[in-house]
Amino acid sequence: MKKERIGFQGALGAFSQEAVVQLLGDKVEVVPFPRFEDVFRALTRRKIDAAVIPIENTLAGSVHENYDHLLHFDVRIAAETNVRIIHNLIAPPGIRFKDIRKVYSHPVALNQCLRFFARHPKIESTPFYDTAGSVKMVMEEKPADAAAIASSVAASIYGAHILQRSIEDDRRNFTRFFLLYASKRTPLPRREAKAWKTSLVFTTRNVPGALFRALSAFALRDLNMTKIESRPLHGKPWEYLFYLDFLDKEEEPRVQNALRHLAELADFMRVLGSYPKGS
Amino acid sequence: MKKERIGFQGALGAFSQEAVVQLLGDKVEVVPFPRFEDVFRALTRRKIDAAVIPIENTLAGSVHENYDHLLHFDVRIAAETNVRIIHNLIAPPGIRFKDIRKVYSHPVALNQCLRFFARHPKIESTPFYDTAGSVKMVMEEKPADAAAIASSVAASIYGAHILQRSIEDDRRNFTRFFLLYASKRTPLPRREAKAWKTSLVFTTRNVPGALFRALSAFALRDLNMTKIESRPLHGKPWEYLFYLDFLDKEEEPRVQNALRHLAELADFMRVLGSYPKGS
Repeated sequence: MKKERIGFQGALGAFSQEAVVQLLGDKVEVVPFPRFEDVFRALTRRKIDAAVIPIENTLAGSVHENYDHLLHFDVRIAAETNVRIIHNLIAPPGIRFKDIRKVYSHPVALNQCLRFFARHPKIESTPFYDTAGSVKMVMEEKPADAAAIASSVAASIYGAHILQRSIEDDRRNFTRFFLLYASKRTPLPRREAKAWKTSLVFTTRNVPGALFRALSAFALRDLNMTKIESRPLHGKPWEYLFYLDFLDKEEEPRVQNALRHLAELADFMRVLGSYPKGS
Repeated sequence: MKKERIGFQGALGAFSQEAVVQLLGDKVEVVPFPRFEDVFRALTRRKIDAAVIPIENTLAGSVHENYDHLLHFDVRIAAETNVRIIHNLIAPPGIRFKDIRKVYSHPVALNQCLRFFARHPKIESTPFYDTAGSVKMVMEEKPADAAAIASSVAASIYGAHILQRSIEDDRRNFTRFFLLYASKRTPLPRREAKAWKTSLVFTTRNVPGALFRALSAFALRDLNMTKIESRPLHGKPWEYLFYLDFLDKEEEPRVQNALRHLAELADFMRVLGSYPKGS
């Protein structure tokens, strides 16, 4: 049987790849892309079978760019998972901790290890385009005084050594990932689930109380909203798109009623997916 | 009389400086800082009298970092203004358009001039830390093939030439700025205003329908919400802080009632300021 090809952003060993394993196991083929937009385009052009993208981190917040792509590309959310983010100090074999003067990583990762840099003022924090990519770079170029911050998977993929484990400031550091398929090719969920989530995007008419009334469609049916995110509506300055997650499955009668109610109130509405709630 | 010292992020000529002029005129002293955090710190340590910071752009969305700083620093919003963002192609005198191969600017600005780069595929878009700073850099280093994208004010401050005006993709490009004072030193508004806004931040108890009930405090009193923004609540994964703007003045009885009502429902609540609505 042909392996499913799963796209993600970043170099091999990125946290997105850990999310792929959590969501689909290790019998799939992973396909790295430089930018999020490339991942979405490859998915809708059927160059890959599915994609895994980060949507929010418990410390840094939403990945707003991906909220925008969910609207602009015709994709469907099929599953979610949460990855515990553990940042490790990683260097080529032979480099000792006391040699290190520069540490490369993605700015978000560097910003989540501020205490490490405060404890080691001789070490300069240096932004790089990607966490796993920074490990790849120090392994290829082997500067004598440089290390990277990335996942343990990245260290093992590139044959680098972990000099210090878990140097992140806050261990309550999780990233939520979505598994996406092209809208017309979304498979049925692979498993029964105890709890479900549904994600949608809508705009309200620009009248007082519009968002409150839109949320009433869910609150009046005891649907538990777990996230709301607003993004600017292009072409209408100071108006917004709202992205909403709530608990329950699209097919349930009370959800169908809520969606019909929201459609009455919203200028635009689209369900982005209904999927088993991640643990 | 001693000039008021107004801090902002970026180099002289940044769009924030245009906001300073719109808010306070040109009889103030402007003090540039490299990072937003430095601006907030200088304000609370009284190194500057006031600060002007961007909070949202109609295309790029909220400046999430500044939402976080509004919570963590003891400051108060005293006014808002909207600046129309016009991006210009700027180069040192003597450089001709056909010589240009590299254009430097802030990534958000580069991303708002994609059609320009599509029309001129020989020109490489190159990220720089700041729009006005990129003009300063090309004027100091004078590479023979480079230009910058920034405001016309930046061109005039650094003595550079505007080669093309208004190269942004979308003219409905505005940035909203806040004027901030340290909480204890916030002056009374300088002028009578027809319309007012109030901004606040709160967290809800983690129970179903909590956000809907919180918003009812405003909807039931016909208070018009103009913006809601969510940010992750640190230490409580998958819970959120909400930032809310609504029309009307904090001192109005119906606003006082709404705030008292919200305080019943919220775990935490703070008014960030009540200020004349920007035009």
